[in-house]
This record gives sequence, structure tokens and C-alpha cells, in this order.
Amino acid sequence: MERGDLFVVSAPSGAGKSTLCSMVMEKLDGLVFSVSHTTRPPRPGEEHGKDYFFVSEEQFQKLVAEDAFLEWARVHGHFYGTLRQHVMDTLSKGLDIILDIDVQGAKQVKEKMPWAVTIFILPPSWHALEERLKKRGSEDREKIKLRLKNALKELEEVHSYHYTVVNDVLEDAYEQFKAIIVAERSKTGRVLASKIDMTKLRPDPDSWLHS
Amino acid sequence: MERGDLFVVSAPSGAGKSTLCSMVMEKLDGLVFSVSHTTRPPRPGEEHGKDYFFVSEEQFQKLVAEDAFLEWARVHGHFYGTLRQHVMDTLSKGLDIILDIDVQGAKQVKEKMPWAVTIFILPPSWHALEERLKKRGSEDREKIKLRLKNALKELEEVHSYHYTVVNDVLEDAYEQFKAIIVAERSKTGRVLASKIDMTKLRPDPDSWLHS
Repeated sequence: MERGDLFVVSAPSGAGKSTLCSMVMEKLDGLVFSVSHTTRPPRPGEEHGKDYFFVSEEQFQKLVAEDAFLEWARVHGHFYGTLRQHVMDTLSKGLDIILDIDVQGAKQVKEKMPWAVTIFILPPSWHALEERLKKRGSEDREKIKLRLKNALKELEEVHSYHYTVVNDVLEDAYEQFKAIIVAERSKTGRVLASKIDMTKLRPDPDSWLHS
Repeated sequence: MERGDLFVVSAPSGAGKSTLCSMVMEKLDGLVFSVSHTTRPPRPGEEHGKDYFFVSEEQFQKLVAEDAFLEWARVHGHFYGTLRQHVMDTLSKGLDIILDIDVQGAKQVKEKMPWAVTIFILPPSWHALEERLKKRGSEDREKIKLRLKNALKELEEVHSYHYTVVNDVLEDAYEQFKAIIVAERSKTGRVLASKIDMTKLRPDPDSWLHS
């Protein structure tokens, strides 16, 4: 069976990445969302096993020591990581997988899997980014400042991503994000390996060709 | 201004290429359909200047002699060509252009413009292709046989195209075709050159960053 595609999605906090991932996951079949492990405490509404696997720093370091992560990074003072085995199992079933990870993790994935498709989500402006973070309301001024500082560094990395989606009007950004996945699935190598059997395109015995 | 994208679309006759091109042209803005010159007589319903520029063989050869064509080819006994100037003018206005051309013409375009995005439309089966050609009803058995013979050769070229769309369910094929264009417009280089000014992503003077 043909291996699935791996999509790496990065964005500064507040660009709307999680919302876009949820929308695309709801619409497209054959697409799995990679749930990261993190040592950050859950935000209101976040579910263990759905949004993240929330683990202690000790548990996280044990997984690091076991080399269980495809990528891991420290972001805003917390650890985040993606289990290698889950990604590999998903891809080998012919399913696509989305990794919602930061720019440091993305670099590690790109080194190990240069065929990964990378997508960066941009806010329409710095002002919009900052307003979204303030409205989220779950964090104090110092924590937001830390996220903004990090956003500045992350924005510099946009050039190294294949695709860029500007999340100004959500519906448009969603259409573009979805189109990227549908288009990647329409790459010739993949279509000929999975969607159509070229033997079907040989002339029928009763073709006019033979008449 | 950023140059537009050039999309080359090829398919054996009867794969539904013209229908798909019309549907995408209707939906997407900033996309121009390149009207080819041909020496083939018009089919019922075809309009001069919209579907093709119908010209005599003498007029066609004059344009060849003037080196006015970006590509030209002889297909099923008739000549087809794309005027270079129109393509260049469209692209330099920042518009995208679709060239609906055969595999020989596509090869010439790819040589001259290696950045062209190439899309092949496949019928779901040989049987479906043959049935569509027969139903078209505008041609006799010998002409259809000629198209089928040509289709066999053209199908071998699918491997050299970036994308492949299987036109089984028209609506699905249309979604894929459209997604390819939307995704290409979301390539990072293009987005940063045309859709967003990165200076907008610098911190505002009143940012919490400075607090």
C-alpha cells in the first residue's frame, strides 16, 4: 500500500492553527490528527488524548530517553513532542497525518522526512495576532508577552515552508488549507499508486481501435 | 508585480478536459483561459474567439513562420497553437493562465517554462473514454478511431505531469482541479510576494512586547 502524506503545520500562537486543523479534520477522510504529548497544563475545554496527552515532566523525559519522539521541543517553557510510532503506523496504513508542531519540531521532522509537506499559517497582521491572544483570556500579561516574543522568531521561519495560508477570513483560509491537502493527494505518483489502476486504461477487446 | 502561474492541462479526447476547464474558469478569479488557434473546423456550438480561433492552414503557417507560437502541434490531422504574446501579457499582469493543449505542445511549454504547473486529466477507464467519444456524435467511426489511437500514445505521458485528476465523478474531479490551482496560489513564495506585506507582521508600537 502507498504510504500516506505527512503534513506539518506551524504558526505563531493566535494565528488560528488549531481551529483550521479541526475544520479540515472534520471535512476530509483518510486524515489523522497527531496528538502531541505536552507538559503544559490543560486550558479550559482541552481534553486529554484529544487535544494533547498531558504528561508530567518526568514522564516526558522518560520518553525522550527512550527515543520515542519523532520530534520534541521546549516552547514557552513547556515540552511538546510527537510519538514516532504513531506517525509511522498511520502513514503505513496509507492514511495522511497532520502534525501541528512548532518551528523547532518542524525542522527535526523535515530533516528526518524530507518529503513532508509543510504549511505555515500567518495572521493577517501583528495587531490581529496580539488581539487574538489577549481575547483568549486564559493567560496573564507576562505569558502573552512570552508568546509574542516567540511569535517574532517563528515568523522568520515562514520562508522555509512549502505553503503559506494567511488566516484573515477564516472560511478562505480553510478553503486554502483544504486545497493544499487535496492537491497533494492529486500528485501524479500518488494517484497512479492508489487511485487508478492503469491497466483499466488499456483498450477493451471490443474497442473500435481493433475494428 | 508578481508573475502569474501557468497551468498546462492535457488529456486524451473524451476525458472531459474542456468541461473541467469551463467549470474552474467560472469559479476562480484571476484566471484566464488561453484560446488556441486551430485549423480544425468548428464543432456545433463552438465559437470563434471563445473556444478557438479558427484559421486557415495558410494563416496558421504564416504565424508559425513569424515564430508567434509558444507551442504548436499537429493533432488528428489538424494544427493547434498558442500565441506567445497573449500568454506573456497575461502572466505579466499577475494573472494565471490555463493552456488546454496536447502532450506534444505541453512538452514544448515545459522546455521553455520549466516552472509551468502540469495537470493530466484521466478518464476512469478505456471503456468510458470510448463511450464518451461515441456519444459526442459529431464524428464518424474513422475519426474516432484516430482519436483513440492518439489517446493510447497520450496516456503514456501521464507520468511526466505534476498532477493527475481522474475524471470519474465530475464534481470530485472539479474539486481536485480547483484545489490544485488554489494550492499553487498558496505556495509560500507567491503568497509573500502578492498576498501579504510582511511589514504588517512587525510588532505595533503599542504592543505588549514593549511593555
